[in-house]
Amino acid sequence: MLEVKTPEEVLRLIEKEFKPIGRSEAVPLAEAHGRVLAEDIRATEYVPDFDRSTVDGYALRAKDTFGCSDAVPAILNLVGEIRMGEGAEIRVPRDSCAYVPTGGAIPEGCDCAVMIEYTEDYGDGTIGILKPGAPGMNLIFRGDDVFPGKTVLKAGRTLEPQDIGALAAIGKTEISVRPRLRVGVISTGDELVPAGDKPGPGQVRDVNSPMLAALLKDFGAEPVDFGIVVDDEELLRDKTAAAARSCDAVILSGGSSAGIKDAACRIIGDMGELLLHGIAIKPGKPTILGKAGNKPLIGLPGHPVAAFFVAKLFVLPLLVRLEGRIMRNYPVHAAISESLNANHGRMQVNACRLEEADGALTAVPIRSKSGLITQLAGADGYLIIDRDCEGLPKDAEVEIYWH
Amino acid sequence: MLEVKTPEEVLRLIEKEFKPIGRSEAVPLAEAHGRVLAEDIRATEYVPDFDRSTVDGYALRAKDTFGCSDAVPAILNLVGEIRMGEGAEIRVPRDSCAYVPTGGAIPEGCDCAVMIEYTEDYGDGTIGILKPGAPGMNLIFRGDDVFPGKTVLKAGRTLEPQDIGALAAIGKTEISVRPRLRVGVISTGDELVPAGDKPGPGQVRDVNSPMLAALLKDFGAEPVDFGIVVDDEELLRDKTAAAARSCDAVILSGGSSAGIKDAACRIIGDMGELLLHGIAIKPGKPTILGKAGNKPLIGLPGHPVAAFFVAKLFVLPLLVRLEGRIMRNYPVHAAISESLNANHGRMQVNACRLEEADGALTAVPIRSKSGLITQLAGADGYLIIDRDCEGLPKDAEVEIYWH
Repeated sequence: MLEVKTPEEVLRLIEKEFKPIGRSEAVPLAEAHGRVLAEDIRATEYVPDFDRSTVDGYALRAKDTFGCSDAVPAILNLVGEIRMGEGAEIRVPRDSCAYVPTGGAIPEGCDCAVMIEYTEDYGDGTIGILKPGAPGMNLIFRGDDVFPGKTVLKAGRTLEPQDIGALAAIGKTEISVRPRLRVGVISTGDELVPAGDKPGPGQVRDVNSPMLAALLKDFGAEPVDFGIVVDDEELLRDKTAAAARSCDAVILSGGSSAGIKDAACRIIGDMGELLLHGIAIKPGKPTILGKAGNKPLIGLPGHPVAAFFVAKLFVLPLLVRLEGRIMRNYPVHAAISESLNANHGRMQVNACRLEEADGALTAVPIRSKSGLITQLAGADGYLIIDRDCEGLPKDAEVEIYWH
Repeated sequence: MLEVKTPEEVLRLIEKEFKPIGRSEAVPLAEAHGRVLAEDIRATEYVPDFDRSTVDGYALRAKDTFGCSDAVPAILNLVGEIRMGEGAEIRVPRDSCAYVPTGGAIPEGCDCAVMIEYTEDYGDGTIGILKPGAPGMNLIFRGDDVFPGKTVLKAGRTLEPQDIGALAAIGKTEISVRPRLRVGVISTGDELVPAGDKPGPGQVRDVNSPMLAALLKDFGAEPVDFGIVVDDEELLRDKTAAAARSCDAVILSGGSSAGIKDAACRIIGDMGELLLHGIAIKPGKPTILGKAGNKPLIGLPGHPVAAFFVAKLFVLPLLVRLEGRIMRNYPVHAAISESLNANHGRMQVNACRLEEADGALTAVPIRSKSGLITQLAGADGYLIIDRDCEGLPKDAEVEIYWH
């Protein structure tokens, strides 16, 4: 018989028992946002590919302007104008300058740009420079931003809008990313009807399938709905096997009766190996985990609040492991609005609302008497009370997680 | 001539000058995740619709078990079994009980459930109860979770996975949400080529269009790409008018030359009203904002880092205003890894990476010399230095924003 494991033990078990899948696929830049990089992105060219001015003004040699001032301007010959989007064809000789717009190319012979505000156009082909230049002033040099071989983004990164900008800048328009993980979702229970149906006597609507589908999409996986299975071991066995054949992972949820939990254990054991039977967490203890080869087979509690937190805290890290994704989860800090008891010998998770007033953030724990959904609807995040903690007093600083 | 406004003034201007659009559309539950509720969601039924047991055990009358114990069990007649997903048809008379599974319906006449662990089946049609029940013990009453008229979710909420679960529970399978805002994106500049092209002399790739498209999709809007327009006032005028006709808002970006900025001001002024010319923020000062009716026309700086931060800090709040969305942005706390100067008379925004070691979070400011992209690629978030602050010392606690 498998023992109940602590959350830390479960996370270590996941690392030990599952390996990154290692597949990749190419997507165009316009579809890469939110996807996970399958390889490091290295630049193959210079950005910018030419020395650029960062100001509107005059490109010149710094040494031709040393010592100049409002009272004693340096007088330079204007030999031309650089236009945006064109190369700097002009050669600028000594004691000369060329007009350059912000972002324009710096012509050969020049080593800085002086802002137009510090110059005077005398109208006779000469320009007065009122403030001395210095080599490199107001310039971006070729390759200052990116040069060939520079690592711009690392494998495992989930591509944010700013990363899409970087990929565009280096001309990377086809990106190698991890294929979305396909995750089969099966709800079990004689009492369940689809959300669109009116429950009869003793029946309730299936909450977990649509909730888990949304959670998986949110994460960037592809949920595959295998529907509701009644409490029948053979039916559940067939459905689980079908899901395992076509998906990278399978989530069963429900089976509030003792019989169906045992059935899920038997099915997972027969298909591969049962790794875990119970996590020391409240809610969420009756969780099971097994594997068929490298495919996780997960049995979540039927209670939606428990299923939700176990999915957040353990199923998503499992998918992170399979995908080789870099994922970090940072909390926001808030003061708790009321005391919260915890005395269960298990880590406790509680949903919260966040309220802001005068720049201070308050976490309001959402209480519910085993409610099916009220603890989750409208929640902004959740807090975790460690196993060794006997509770939180009012106004204690707490960390609220969002992901 | 319009004055440069502070960030706070710009946010107030947005509230004052723009009104919520107020449209809605219906989407099925499976597509509602990430969408913005157009109306409050009120329940129309009870969840659960019957009294339920929260344990596997026996439904009974509490008073028939008062005073019982391991030594002196209460002996009750077993009159039947409640099955999952079926109504409780049995009537349980005095001194009797019925087996009930977790989640099963409580039969008429019973007021609590006793866990099976505290009972003994004598095999002769009687059950020994070893621990007294109490009225309401181990029950969820009809409507405990949700009752008709209860507000489950509020208008303006962006639907999270947990909210999808709540909607499923109350049988709400068609949801009234805000239509995605259509936002036209135009990049201007003679020096720009599309990301897929190789830049010629003096040219750079258009970073802003793909970056802004990703940012808008991330937010839940629909970007409409109007491509790159060269620095030609008439072309830009036609393109801006076309975008305004088919979109809810238009973003121009680029035009690093002084001429095209003036052109953008004239075009916006001619199409409606110019509201803003310059924000006291670094980077991002050369930002313009106007409106044609209730449609915002936004001119972002051409520099991608500036365009990115102005879009995050001002364009997204503008879209929030048009959509009537509730959006809050909470920072995470970190210690800054090195000192950072700020002495510009403007609010300063700086991208950061976050590093975690021994549970402590460090923000590493990303420095770049007007780099086009390096300040953004791989960034985890950004920090804000107020105008009145002259800089941050090493190890100062900073707030890092993600959204």
